[in-house]
Amino acid sequence: MNFAVKSIVFIALGATGLNAYGALPSLPKVAPSPKDNPTTPAKVELGKKLFFDPRLSKDGTVSCNSCHNVMSGGEDSRPNSVGINGQKGGRSSPTVWNAAFLSVQFWDGRAASLEDQAKGPLTNPIEMGMESHDVVIERVKQIPGYVTEFGKVFPGKDSVTIDNLAKAIAAYERTLITPDNAYDKFVKGNKKALSPDAQRGLKTAQEVGCLSCHSGPAFAGPDLPVGVGNFQKFPALAGSPYETKYKITEDLGRFNVTKQESDKNMWRVPTWRNVAVTAPYFHNGSVETLEEAVKVMASTQLGKTLPENDVKDIVAFLESLTGPFPKQIAPMLPKTAGRSVIK
Amino acid sequence: MNFAVKSIVFIALGATGLNAYGALPSLPKVAPSPKDNPTTPAKVELGKKLFFDPRLSKDGTVSCNSCHNVMSGGEDSRPNSVGINGQKGGRSSPTVWNAAFLSVQFWDGRAASLEDQAKGPLTNPIEMGMESHDVVIERVKQIPGYVTEFGKVFPGKDSVTIDNLAKAIAAYERTLITPDNAYDKFVKGNKKALSPDAQRGLKTAQEVGCLSCHSGPAFAGPDLPVGVGNFQKFPALAGSPYETKYKITEDLGRFNVTKQESDKNMWRVPTWRNVAVTAPYFHNGSVETLEEAVKVMASTQLGKTLPENDVKDIVAFLESLTGPFPKQIAPMLPKTAGRSVIK
Repeated sequence: MNFAVKSIVFIALGATGLNAYGALPSLPKVAPSPKDNPTTPAKVELGKKLFFDPRLSKDGTVSCNSCHNVMSGGEDSRPNSVGINGQKGGRSSPTVWNAAFLSVQFWDGRAASLEDQAKGPLTNPIEMGMESHDVVIERVKQIPGYVTEFGKVFPGKDSVTIDNLAKAIAAYERTLITPDNAYDKFVKGNKKALSPDAQRGLKTAQEVGCLSCHSGPAFAGPDLPVGVGNFQKFPALAGSPYETKYKITEDLGRFNVTKQESDKNMWRVPTWRNVAVTAPYFHNGSVETLEEAVKVMASTQLGKTLPENDVKDIVAFLESLTGPFPKQIAPMLPKTAGRSVIK
Repeated sequence: MNFAVKSIVFIALGATGLNAYGALPSLPKVAPSPKDNPTTPAKVELGKKLFFDPRLSKDGTVSCNSCHNVMSGGEDSRPNSVGINGQKGGRSSPTVWNAAFLSVQFWDGRAASLEDQAKGPLTNPIEMGMESHDVVIERVKQIPGYVTEFGKVFPGKDSVTIDNLAKAIAAYERTLITPDNAYDKFVKGNKKALSPDAQRGLKTAQEVGCLSCHSGPAFAGPDLPVGVGNFQKFPALAGSPYETKYKITEDLGRFNVTKQESDKNMWRVPTWRNVAVTAPYFHNGSVETLEEAVKVMASTQLGKTLPENDVKDIVAFLESLTGPFPKQIAPMLPKTAGRSVIK
């Protein structure tokens, strides 16, 4: 698996041309969309409303945006997420920013697409807690504005369906991308776009081996087909003192999905884009700072203890990967005149 | 008290001129601001960020917007609000839309101003749950972008204070107003702005006595000085079957604030503006529909059972009081690079 992934990296990078740091791609300005769910402005607008609408949760308190806050790093700044009734999940919310460029979703890659992912939290009892997708759709149908909008976006007999709801949310999420930052400008030729610290950090990250896994324009791996994940073992090397300190191996990761021994402690490689604004770190949110996260990764994945200056430079580079975030106009949610849909 | 209030109504309305329905004022296009907190664009922008920032709550899950959602009716569509750890409050969240025109805040009027109000939920253990205002300020000071913005908006030595935080939030809330709706156009002379149903509803509401308390441009009472509330007893008349059905008297309202016998079951008269999108109804959110709410009020406050057609007309009028909502650009919250402020 590891070898195969690396081969793909080589091929993928080969297409983008070379620069001083080898082949480094910039983020596309548009996220790819599947053939059966083309991104259209009306669909994005509907998806945005659904994304921000807490009425999609059982008690009306949790929206997609609650844990994937697009007013900040696309997540919730917490070690683990909080669903209805104050229930805490076991994992740290991954950022929604640039999730459109990932080939599998969730930390353990259990969803192939954004469409698949969007359906999960709705009926997870500790997240949005709806009894079933039918109950979700029943509620959406009680909101006249949604019925009208679904009808326009998905013409036909049966517009308001869970599949169409997920398609609309996914279409919105495909607009939540952050191309054109300092790094993108840098690899396109503007050598002054990155600070000297960040440039050194990029070089160091490449030399010590970080980019073997954090490759590609989102630094989350090569451009793989939807559903094929870039999974890596964490920790890759046994014996790091950080392993016990941060309880890294307690959660078995992808093994919980496949039950295959070889998937124990395997995780989808997360994106570096906007990582500076998604503390705390890792699947369990156990590490508070980005600096410490870099040290942990160097130790557990590369068997290295980096000099403090190298850590600082890498952090400077990672910080350069923040934004720019496209302006979000807060949607007005369709009303249910004179009646609430929450009991 | 009742007599005094009615006198003020008379004077306040007297200044606005007469029309077919007597003196009916439209909503001002700008909300008044106190002398010590003038509304400025930079302050509004800072206040908006604070309003949307869940990091102002202990566990990072609850923002002002959680219970006063400006993407909908300015509240949470729930019978009662939910704070940190899934804790439920005893009352239904009042709308933030046009709160700027109310002379006291909270259902029981325990805060005189928007500034006073903004401080309450932060340290309420079942709402945002911060240990103290000092802890709030300590956290805000950990977010560099806020420190810079507070410094610009509140120049001087000690910019980041709880008073300035409340001032900024209040300044933002003073922009959350909905003038220029169908009713406003109607009372300014466009007789076609309101549907015939809504016009009949307005006339009926006035004739049966609703507007005695729901007077003024926000239909929440006359233009009183800040801190002087338009309180009314609910139920005003004993013996309505709705009293027990909806547990109206269980919460003693303003009595809990003043401990004065005369304040038992006294409540601030809520605004009618946007009432159609703030179901469920009343201080305890016990009534699901606007139609039922109209019937309850007719019974408990006026001792009347209205014909169904009158109820429908009044509802049509109330629905005409929705929006238009000013477009909200979702703010990007100041980041804490590489570190979360939530434990």
